Amino acid sequence: MARIVMKFGGTSMAGIERIRHVAARVKREVDADNEVAVVVSAMAGETDRLVNFCREASSLYDPREYDVVVSSGEQITSGLLAIALQAAGVKARSWLGWQLPIRTSDGHASARIGEIDTTALNASLAAGEVAVIPGFQGVASGERVTTLGRGGSDTSAVAMAAAMKADRCDIYTDVDGVYTTDPRIVPRARKLSKVTYEEMLELASVGAKVLQTRSVGLAMKEKVRVRVLSSFEDGDEPQRGTLIVGEEEIDDMERQLITGIAHDKNEAKITLASVPDRPGSVAAIFTPLADAGINVDMIVQNVAHAAQSTDVTFTVPAADLPRSLEVLGLNQATIGFTAIDHDTRVAKISVVGVGMRSHAGVAATMFATLGERGINIQVITTSEIKVSVLIEEDYTELAVRVLHTAYGLDAEDAAA
Amino acid sequence: MARIVMKFGGTSMAGIERIRHVAARVKREVDADNEVAVVVSAMAGETDRLVNFCREASSLYDPREYDVVVSSGEQITSGLLAIALQAAGVKARSWLGWQLPIRTSDGHASARIGEIDTTALNASLAAGEVAVIPGFQGVASGERVTTLGRGGSDTSAVAMAAAMKADRCDIYTDVDGVYTTDPRIVPRARKLSKVTYEEMLELASVGAKVLQTRSVGLAMKEKVRVRVLSSFEDGDEPQRGTLIVGEEEIDDMERQLITGIAHDKNEAKITLASVPDRPGSVAAIFTPLADAGINVDMIVQNVAHAAQSTDVTFTVPAADLPRSLEVLGLNQATIGFTAIDHDTRVAKISVVGVGMRSHAGVAATMFATLGERGINIQVITTSEIKVSVLIEEDYTELAVRVLHTAYGLDAEDAAA
Repeated sequence: MARIVMKFGGTSMAGIERIRHVAARVKREVDADNEVAVVVSAMAGETDRLVNFCREASSLYDPREYDVVVSSGEQITSGLLAIALQAAGVKARSWLGWQLPIRTSDGHASARIGEIDTTALNASLAAGEVAVIPGFQGVASGERVTTLGRGGSDTSAVAMAAAMKADRCDIYTDVDGVYTTDPRIVPRARKLSKVTYEEMLELASVGAKVLQTRSVGLAMKEKVRVRVLSSFEDGDEPQRGTLIVGEEEIDDMERQLITGIAHDKNEAKITLASVPDRPGSVAAIFTPLADAGINVDMIVQNVAHAAQSTDVTFTVPAADLPRSLEVLGLNQATIGFTAIDHDTRVAKISVVGVGMRSHAGVAATMFATLGERGINIQVITTSEIKVSVLIEEDYTELAVRVLHTAYGLDAEDAAA
Repeated sequence: MARIVMKFGGTSMAGIERIRHVAARVKREVDADNEVAVVVSAMAGETDRLVNFCREASSLYDPREYDVVVSSGEQITSGLLAIALQAAGVKARSWLGWQLPIRTSDGHASARIGEIDTTALNASLAAGEVAVIPGFQGVASGERVTTLGRGGSDTSAVAMAAAMKADRCDIYTDVDGVYTTDPRIVPRARKLSKVTYEEMLELASVGAKVLQTRSVGLAMKEKVRVRVLSSFEDGDEPQRGTLIVGEEEIDDMERQLITGIAHDKNEAKITLASVPDRPGSVAAIFTPLADAGINVDMIVQNVAHAAQSTDVTFTVPAADLPRSLEVLGLNQATIGFTAIDHDTRVAKISVVGVGMRSHAGVAATMFATLGERGINIQVITTSEIKVSVLIEEDYTELAVRVLHTAYGLDAEDAAA
């Protein structure tokens, strides 16, 4: 007997037919003698409908009341799944966030999960009941309803799995796992059977829109074994999907130098010309940006000119570009740059893999491979498990394809 | 300063524009220095949508989960009205059933309100906040969500008014008050400025679809002053709508012999022929019907024939006719009737008024008036404040019109 958390997203809950399909999937785990908690999203489109109501009512809506409104989407699907499970002959009940309770911070509309009381839940599971839990919601001090921010149901599922000491947290989604790269760009991309939390964080944050980044960070911290798999594909083999685990769970045999290639077109490049080359000048650039809540990603400082000044280039999320330019303009005198330049036609290409720690040649292979194709590298950053470069946006697909081949990631045949 | 409860139905909450209109209406009461709690229904159509989801998921749905699903309709509108009130510059917050809490019985899907804790609510009102309370919902033992049954929001409003010791409970609806009869049948029907609880119960239960019957009974028990008025009509005069109060609040001057004429086409007549005329035979008819949860309304036992048997005629709700015939058929041997006859083409016409207690002539006037028009009376029942007759359905409108005139209820001019 294992204890598992199953999480189903909005497309899996869109309508009673699909909810019945989810109930059948859950029943299979129950029939295999597992203790099961199910975390559900709202029906696809429902959260948008509710968010729009709030915005229509007031552009400056009270986030506490917003939470009351939008949390109802998951309340509805949790009740409906409990009914569908009972109809399938499975004992089940719903547990709203305040009923368990799932305690969160007071940060309404983007609360963080604190303690989850599992006393009542454990008694219910022990009595053979499936627990159906609305994702995305909790309760803050003063017994007010909270939500975790968009996409928060993945985080709910991982937090439930940690609190319940579940053996596994299965995230059912509309893709069948995590791939070595975007299969729409590289048809020979391979599905990974295992990936580490660290790799998943790099792959997720650069556009592999499979799991919410926050949920992966939480899984890493709490050591929750997460499996990503498709809710639209049937089959009982326990090996389907991609398992996301700690590095220690990956055998040497399985370990590969490079796990995947990610790309991200949502960054913008900013260059400040002739920044004075003296202590404190870099802080003068990034402190006001940080104060404005803008995440700076890649940074490169060019070799100083003879004139004791330097060019500084960095990237910010493209959506934050206008605000970044405004903040920098206001601080021009303090920073002391002479000109500001920006470019949104850039893409970040990342090569990710825990194996690269002990291999010096990864970056060299990357630069050589891109160079052979005449792709110019504008900025480079490296971390323990990642090398990223910024290139011209038009070369994105070409770069991903040649790197995928260069690191030996192509599948034997396209259908794999 | 008065303390008032305002209740708005589904058509008043159907969409953000209407919710904004409700917020403006509430603001007027707040600006007049009143303490206000607002009880809201779900958006028109929303409860039906949610009920259908449950039915689709399983015809034998768990009422506890049904309550989780359908209570979300009012949760949504209460959050949205709080946002709209804040946007209008009025301090406000929502209070879900479990937050106050509103304790109810465990009868899921048709729970009865028990105790309402007003401690937190009173503190909030004292701090100048409008309380927005979802109607129709509460919380039962084990902290499970309950609902009160369809139309329960009127009952929620009256119960809140009683618990808060409110000076008044204003029910905003899509009619502008209670009329002497259905204005679609009698254009000269007059709006009543006051009506007693007892009269309202008779008028409501016979088809004046203004207020849920249960809410009137509760208002009578708790002595809550209820006012029914239109949410689509503006104007500040405190006298608009119809006030529903105890008999002691109606002056002799205002008191009329007859308050109104009601009609109901939703009954069916059953006649059992040749029931043995001996002790216990009537009980043999009505006990099995009561056991099946069928409400018998009018009953008449004909004069015994020479053969020591009698015909028994009674009415049941038309919707319960097939089940009634089945129950009676199963018990034919015990009851001992020889034949069973039924008719759904009947209508019940009732003359209602607290004033009739001391006037013997009301029934006589009724029979004479109907007789003059050739309308045959099939069954008669009387109570302290009502005389009802069963007639052929085709004569319904004619009967209502001639009685309205006979009791002097016609307005001076049709526009009144």
